[in-house]
Amino acid sequence: MSKRIIVIGSGAAGLTAASTARRVDPEASITVVTEDEHIAYSPCVIPWVLEGVGGWDSIVMHSPAFYKDERGIDVMIQTKVTGVDDERKVLVTEGGELPYDSLVIATGGTVFVPPIPGKDLPGVFSVRTINDGKRIQEWMGEVDSVSIVGAGVIGLEMALAMRHMGKKVSVIEMFPQVVPRILDADLAEMVQSYLEGQGVEFVMGAPIASVDGDGKVEAVTVGGRRIDCGMVIMATGVRANLEVPRMLELDIGELGAVRASPSMQPYRKGRLVRNVYMAGDVVMCESGVVPGPTMSQLGSSAVRQGIVAGTNAAGGSAMHPGVVSPWVSVIGDMQVAGTGLSKGLAEYYGIDVVEGVAQGYTRARYYPGGKKLVVKVLVERSSHRMVGAQIVSGEEATGRINWLTAAIVTGTTVEDFATYFENAYCPPTSMVRDVALNAADRAAEKL
Amino acid sequence: MSKRIIVIGSGAAGLTAASTARRVDPEASITVVTEDEHIAYSPCVIPWVLEGVGGWDSIVMHSPAFYKDERGIDVMIQTKVTGVDDERKVLVTEGGELPYDSLVIATGGTVFVPPIPGKDLPGVFSVRTINDGKRIQEWMGEVDSVSIVGAGVIGLEMALAMRHMGKKVSVIEMFPQVVPRILDADLAEMVQSYLEGQGVEFVMGAPIASVDGDGKVEAVTVGGRRIDCGMVIMATGVRANLEVPRMLELDIGELGAVRASPSMQPYRKGRLVRNVYMAGDVVMCESGVVPGPTMSQLGSSAVRQGIVAGTNAAGGSAMHPGVVSPWVSVIGDMQVAGTGLSKGLAEYYGIDVVEGVAQGYTRARYYPGGKKLVVKVLVERSSHRMVGAQIVSGEEATGRINWLTAAIVTGTTVEDFATYFENAYCPPTSMVRDVALNAADRAAEKL
Repeated sequence: MSKRIIVIGSGAAGLTAASTARRVDPEASITVVTEDEHIAYSPCVIPWVLEGVGGWDSIVMHSPAFYKDERGIDVMIQTKVTGVDDERKVLVTEGGELPYDSLVIATGGTVFVPPIPGKDLPGVFSVRTINDGKRIQEWMGEVDSVSIVGAGVIGLEMALAMRHMGKKVSVIEMFPQVVPRILDADLAEMVQSYLEGQGVEFVMGAPIASVDGDGKVEAVTVGGRRIDCGMVIMATGVRANLEVPRMLELDIGELGAVRASPSMQPYRKGRLVRNVYMAGDVVMCESGVVPGPTMSQLGSSAVRQGIVAGTNAAGGSAMHPGVVSPWVSVIGDMQVAGTGLSKGLAEYYGIDVVEGVAQGYTRARYYPGGKKLVVKVLVERSSHRMVGAQIVSGEEATGRINWLTAAIVTGTTVEDFATYFENAYCPPTSMVRDVALNAADRAAEKL
Repeated sequence: MSKRIIVIGSGAAGLTAASTARRVDPEASITVVTEDEHIAYSPCVIPWVLEGVGGWDSIVMHSPAFYKDERGIDVMIQTKVTGVDDERKVLVTEGGELPYDSLVIATGGTVFVPPIPGKDLPGVFSVRTINDGKRIQEWMGEVDSVSIVGAGVIGLEMALAMRHMGKKVSVIEMFPQVVPRILDADLAEMVQSYLEGQGVEFVMGAPIASVDGDGKVEAVTVGGRRIDCGMVIMATGVRANLEVPRMLELDIGELGAVRASPSMQPYRKGRLVRNVYMAGDVVMCESGVVPGPTMSQLGSSAVRQGIVAGTNAAGGSAMHPGVVSPWVSVIGDMQVAGTGLSKGLAEYYGIDVVEGVAQGYTRARYYPGGKKLVVKVLVERSSHRMVGAQIVSGEEATGRINWLTAAIVTGTTVEDFATYFENAYCPPTSMVRDVALNAADRAAEKL
């Protein structure tokens, strides 16, 4: 009999796992079970859709019918998992029991909403699903001002989208800087400054105390101050959805998500659980930069983990390494990117780092249209290894952060980066010696 | 007494060597001797200036006065070296003798013009210096059609610049494909096709036989065919300027340029020559991909070599590794890039390679403005190491080719590239899994 593979979750992790399993085992019976109505879209694009870049339909890459017809994968939408019997290898849904040989858990995460008064008032939204987006879109027509709670990249992208729609926007952040944890204060200052120039107001260093209103949102209270607003968007970070893992009594790691082996299998009381595989935001990762745990709740990480989980679930052999987690965010005319450790993360791991910062341009100095480019590299003092990098730029941040990630992944010292990592040059696309190499030189001078 | 350093040549290699020497030794006396009238500009930008992007003045980054005032470096322009006495350590110019402790030779290269009838007719030009550019600009006002000899990247960039100026353009190439040697035939076909769509005519697989005309260019003859044209631009590749190296009887390598040590010092009868350093187009390099010689006549390579030569000439310590030589060319709306070995170069070294090609987009599939992106990777069959990569794209080729170069530099296998080399993702700048990783998957499947 052909192998029965069930995947719970229809985000990037789940659908990648299902499609990969199909490639590895053409005969397997593969079923995706999801509570969602829409599948196969990137939540990352929601801010852009809200400001009018494409429509909700255009961002859905594939329908359940596509998976059925093109890949022989059944997708059961709007289906809630009510139990898992790991002895009998049966998944229980409201519609009945589904037997499996391999189970992939890719249940993702949910926006964490702080437990404050008024958090359930009409007019409070998260940004996670197409339906969230549609609800925001409907409500925002009625309001002039918006409070965004959380100055991470989603919060900032949402802030600018709302500005582009003509709203008065306040961003509330409990930390003293935007993009806390993964961006250093100096680059964060550039980002905040840019957004202030776009008319976004920031209330920093204070947690939100309450959402206020009679029957619907009328204001928020932060640090004793009342900010009038017609809606609140919670961009307060994502917590793993642990309902299904808890049914299986899987071990939860110290960062609040499921601990997984390099084969992307979970543990129960410290022992590897066979026939179950994990992928995506529900998983806690190991860092690829230092020995230690980390989270990598990125679409790109979900895909990588889905490939490993799907391969192994189908009887193949794949390994998920520690993660460096490069990320990039486009905020209007500004691109912000990071990889590996920030100074904050280095401190968390007790790593002593040296930084090098350089400024330049994305094109030859005299070539029209070049954008200012700031690159920071972080180097472990004891080993001279590159352990992190950050970019603020007007263009071409993505390829550059991937390039710096390559240096980190391969354990390259900052001196070797400057010596061996050649860059291509053409006046319309680069300076003759890339600014990232100059940043490396600056760091090396301090070692 | 302070150290006396003389640099011959005022291109990227020479001026980088001089500036680096100044950083290493604040006390040294540093003199740059050059035949050129203009210094400190990138010849790569000439095609764009011809079509109106900036002016000749704007591309000159620094004047001799800047070097004197800001860096304490004397620049002697329009000064020809007539001899070198390496025993006495004296450089001889038309104006007199200049004693040195360290000599940096960065005499660059000259466009190789095939020895055909009519090659010296008025209306035949090279593209190498600002004065070349000015002469072309003056002449091109009078003519309707231009023949460009050589379909390398300079030839193609010039072809499109001339089309943008409304000229009829024929490109003549003796090889059967454009960008021969460093780009594979399949990607070359895409580039040629794009240019044909822009109205450029190609005459492939035949060398130019003659330039014809009575007192000035009227036509060229290629493969028995006469092509009428008012000017001819020779973009036929660069040969090292060996006049000064020959005065010193330096060893010339098998690729026709000066052989240099990792310290960028030349050899004489197989013995390292002390106190002399080399940089730029005059030098033959060792490959960083395979054990063997190569040429790396790129602006970016000139800078890297200039840093090493300048450091060592000033008494510091630096090493120039083997080169991977990533390059990128912007041809209208198309970006073409390559790194490491092409199939042709792999064949030259006797290396058996496997290729993987993938197509996708530069942004999320649904995100407006994304450009088609083709990535090829070449993998050494015996070791699974990545040894080359090529890109044809509408944008963001530079960072991506640097990223692929990092994999080659670090000896990464194609499987490890796909497993470890994470990419950052944001819908406006990338697909969730970069196309380069898919190309790696395609190659890995064949191994």
